[in-house]
Amino acid sequence: MKLYDYTRAPNPRRVRIFMAEKGIEIPLEAVDLGTEAQFDEDFARRNPFRTVPLLELDDGTHISESMAICRYLEALNPEPPLFGSTPLEQARVEMWSRRAELTGLLHAADVVRNSIAFFADKSLPGVQGGSPQIEALIERGKAGLDRFFRAFDQQLADNEFVAGDHYSVADITTQVTIEFAGWRKIGIPEECQNLARWYQQVSARPSAKA
Amino acid sequence: MKLYDYTRAPNPRRVRIFMAEKGIEIPLEAVDLGTEAQFDEDFARRNPFRTVPLLELDDGTHISESMAICRYLEALNPEPPLFGSTPLEQARVEMWSRRAELTGLLHAADVVRNSIAFFADKSLPGVQGGSPQIEALIERGKAGLDRFFRAFDQQLADNEFVAGDHYSVADITTQVTIEFAGWRKIGIPEECQNLARWYQQVSARPSAKA
Repeated sequence: MKLYDYTRAPNPRRVRIFMAEKGIEIPLEAVDLGTEAQFDEDFARRNPFRTVPLLELDDGTHISESMAICRYLEALNPEPPLFGSTPLEQARVEMWSRRAELTGLLHAADVVRNSIAFFADKSLPGVQGGSPQIEALIERGKAGLDRFFRAFDQQLADNEFVAGDHYSVADITTQVTIEFAGWRKIGIPEECQNLARWYQQVSARPSAKA
Repeated sequence: MKLYDYTRAPNPRRVRIFMAEKGIEIPLEAVDLGTEAQFDEDFARRNPFRTVPLLELDDGTHISESMAICRYLEALNPEPPLFGSTPLEQARVEMWSRRAELTGLLHAADVVRNSIAFFADKSLPGVQGGSPQIEALIERGKAGLDRFFRAFDQQLADNEFVAGDHYSVADITTQVTIEFAGWRKIGIPEECQNLARWYQQVSARPSAKA
């Protein structure tokens, strides 16, 4: 197996943290998004959607999409379960993971991709040009992140981890969302002390170095 | 169990089609998004993220997010498997399901929510006001849908179903995306004959009536 990776990007980081939590080691191969290597013919043949992370199996099969890769690794290495154990736990992990993506990660991506000069005309991942930045998405994204911080703060008032009693992929996505928002110096609001407590805790886990 | 539902919306439809494919019957309760019933205190207590579908269990537990609900139902009713059987199949279903959401459904939502007067100032799901429409997202969404149609047409040139040999949730999300794009009269491009063949096929399944 081989994982096509780009150190700075949030989605590959989700998979690397997941692997670290599982104790899984897979050789990494860098795809330099900074020079748009994801649009090279070679890479596009492996993933026509031109995104990283991308997992390559030994028989040449490719799996893209962070959560698809993580689910594959979970099936092969069930312990510790990071997608929940019982049907209800699994549903809760999926629910909170989706909430983190839809109400957090996507807003952070909107802020970053529409405000940094590098992404001019390529504000959508995997699309080479023809996708101009939309200034209004910066404000919309900031407002969305503010709602996200407050909603997750409330959840973490009564729960040790995002999806409940156990650490899961929902924590990973939430952690990476907060880091990504930090690219534009958007931090956890001071009154969100539960979220801040939790963020300190996950950032101290060895997997945070992944 | 009870499913909070809204007939016209794409996400509840994903769950209803899923239930029909499984032969699962759950009483439906309508939440009238047309009168913004999702913002009533009563409903917001059940789902602070104010979205449908929402599954209510007999003990009062709530599960939101279509794919979390479907995964819960899959765990309780494994046959026929709609999230794949082997680890690799499961990864492929998740990958194509995500691709359908991120490169299809989200673009259709952008086109619909930013172009219909009803959504003025509430262009984001679950957010009551303060989220103005962004005209540029209409064009970006249309261009995205065009890429989506062509990419999925290519996948369906070599595969009977979206994720490979078996019908799965990836087909459901793709089907609902095409229906949703149809709200704004955006149809499958004429040259995408594989996608058209497949769409005719899934639309003829009994579950399409759900």
